[in-house]
Amino acid sequence: MSTIRTLTGITTTGTPHLGNYVGAIRPAIKSSLQDDTESFFFLADYHALIKCWDPERVHESAREIAATWLALGLDTDRVTFYRQSDIPEIPELCWILTCMTAKGLMNRAHAYKDAVQKNEESDAKDPDKGITMGLFSYPVLMAADILMFNAHKVPVGKDQIQHLEMARDIAGRFNHHYGELFAMPEAVVGDTTAVLSGLDGRKMSKSYNNTIPLFVPEKKLRKLIMKIKTNSLEPGEPKDPDSCTLFEIWSAFATADEIAAKRRQYEEGAGWGQLKQELFEYLNDHLADPRARYEELMQDPGYVEQELRKGADKARNEASARLAKVRQAVGIRPLG
Amino acid sequence: MSTIRTLTGITTTGTPHLGNYVGAIRPAIKSSLQDDTESFFFLADYHALIKCWDPERVHESAREIAATWLALGLDTDRVTFYRQSDIPEIPELCWILTCMTAKGLMNRAHAYKDAVQKNEESDAKDPDKGITMGLFSYPVLMAADILMFNAHKVPVGKDQIQHLEMARDIAGRFNHHYGELFAMPEAVVGDTTAVLSGLDGRKMSKSYNNTIPLFVPEKKLRKLIMKIKTNSLEPGEPKDPDSCTLFEIWSAFATADEIAAKRRQYEEGAGWGQLKQELFEYLNDHLADPRARYEELMQDPGYVEQELRKGADKARNEASARLAKVRQAVGIRPLG
Repeated sequence: MSTIRTLTGITTTGTPHLGNYVGAIRPAIKSSLQDDTESFFFLADYHALIKCWDPERVHESAREIAATWLALGLDTDRVTFYRQSDIPEIPELCWILTCMTAKGLMNRAHAYKDAVQKNEESDAKDPDKGITMGLFSYPVLMAADILMFNAHKVPVGKDQIQHLEMARDIAGRFNHHYGELFAMPEAVVGDTTAVLSGLDGRKMSKSYNNTIPLFVPEKKLRKLIMKIKTNSLEPGEPKDPDSCTLFEIWSAFATADEIAAKRRQYEEGAGWGQLKQELFEYLNDHLADPRARYEELMQDPGYVEQELRKGADKARNEASARLAKVRQAVGIRPLG
Repeated sequence: MSTIRTLTGITTTGTPHLGNYVGAIRPAIKSSLQDDTESFFFLADYHALIKCWDPERVHESAREIAATWLALGLDTDRVTFYRQSDIPEIPELCWILTCMTAKGLMNRAHAYKDAVQKNEESDAKDPDKGITMGLFSYPVLMAADILMFNAHKVPVGKDQIQHLEMARDIAGRFNHHYGELFAMPEAVVGDTTAVLSGLDGRKMSKSYNNTIPLFVPEKKLRKLIMKIKTNSLEPGEPKDPDSCTLFEIWSAFATADEIAAKRRQYEEGAGWGQLKQELFEYLNDHLADPRARYEELMQDPGYVEQELRKGADKARNEASARLAKVRQAVGIRPLG
């Protein structure tokens, strides 16, 4: 049986929220349990520096994300769970790939083009105003992340498909010139129904400031759920579950039977207050155990650090062997 | 007495020639002997990858350049002599600085603008045709080379002054945002009279294919000197030393008295054959001892490697301490 190697990076700028859990963390952990899958998960802190110049935020986010994944039962013997900045082979490979990457390729990156367009719309004299080399070069670092471990399958959102194509382009160029050292990675586009709405009904996202953090304390969780935007229908009036954020979140956690029962409650005109309270209780039950574990881990950063170091050892074991081949190929070799 | 720290990188794409020796290597070794100077010399092999995709050339050039500097008496206990690719802290710092560098700054780099202009003149549809991210990002790597060791003084050719200004810009932006971690480097523009002409009378340069390698065997050295372009004046006719490549090379090696004597020979109409033979003999005497040492070193790459490793240990000792501060500043920190 051939093994599929997948790789997922989590940028260390935010606090994991329900949307991250449903859309990324839960499926990733689930997939890591498959026999034919070898999973690499990493805290993408070099990527964080592109958009976040607040050192406390970068640090705290790494702590929260690592504790979250461990609290949710990630088996670090089974997967390779590491912090990007513990792998010096990655920035080194990044530079080597930089030398093989056409600038024209980066010119066409959506994220860069969007930033330029915003400048043009705001009549900025310089279309590159406020754009850093980090933003511009980011697809090269992402290629290094992936190619460093010859990951075959990279689960991505639609906005990241282009970056995977760029990684393939860079790998192909390297392989063509220096010999076949890199596997061609493939994008695996996640199920878009896994996107959750946030407090205001828009996609739950840090940028909209509408998130429900995954492991907020019970009281705060209740308070946030009570704030979820609903409409003005009264108790007794039938409600449409399919346009309702409460129902969407419920459906992301509940069993098929529970979902069907909830749908009937909507049709029978349950009140918003009751629906919110029931969602809170359900979620709270669901999250209580991992939340307790999360809180323990947040109080024991030494243990989390040790887990990350263990992952870094595993990752570097492989990264250093591959980088040695890359160096040999490009002519960086010991003299003796 | 305050110490001046200087840093010089030598891109590992070529074979050291007389022009390199007179213009760069000899003054660098001389300056390294001053009591108030701390010198860092490195083989810039990550830079080599930007323009040279021939692995054998990159490797062989590193071997030749290292052997050359050692053969010329570089005191590796006194200076820090290392290979860039032995210092993984450098590409890591390069990425961190990439996140702090404005793309607009790179847009204005002369080397990049020249490449774009060539494309525009040749009616290429894409002004970035054939331009790699290596060429585009090169000033960031150069900034990392310099800032990694807080070098104060960087001897450069005129074409490199802009890159030093960029390094200052990047350092300033980092210091402003994260705290004063980097010293502001200054360009020290070398004496332009130290440029030597090559076989065809143009500046001696690998790109013109007109060089006299520093340590070619005696026979080959004679042959090359005999090929130096002169004019058609006959023996007995007075000649102008100041427009003569032979005289220029003589002057770069001889004492003041010897130069004055040579000038008289020109005025008295010495023949080109005689002048070439005398230049050959003079140079050959001058170079015989280091050439013998060079040939020994080229046969003993293990020793050269060991010297480079010694330098890398010294360099990393400092680089790792500075990088630790940089990481701390940007928020890349152990959790525990």
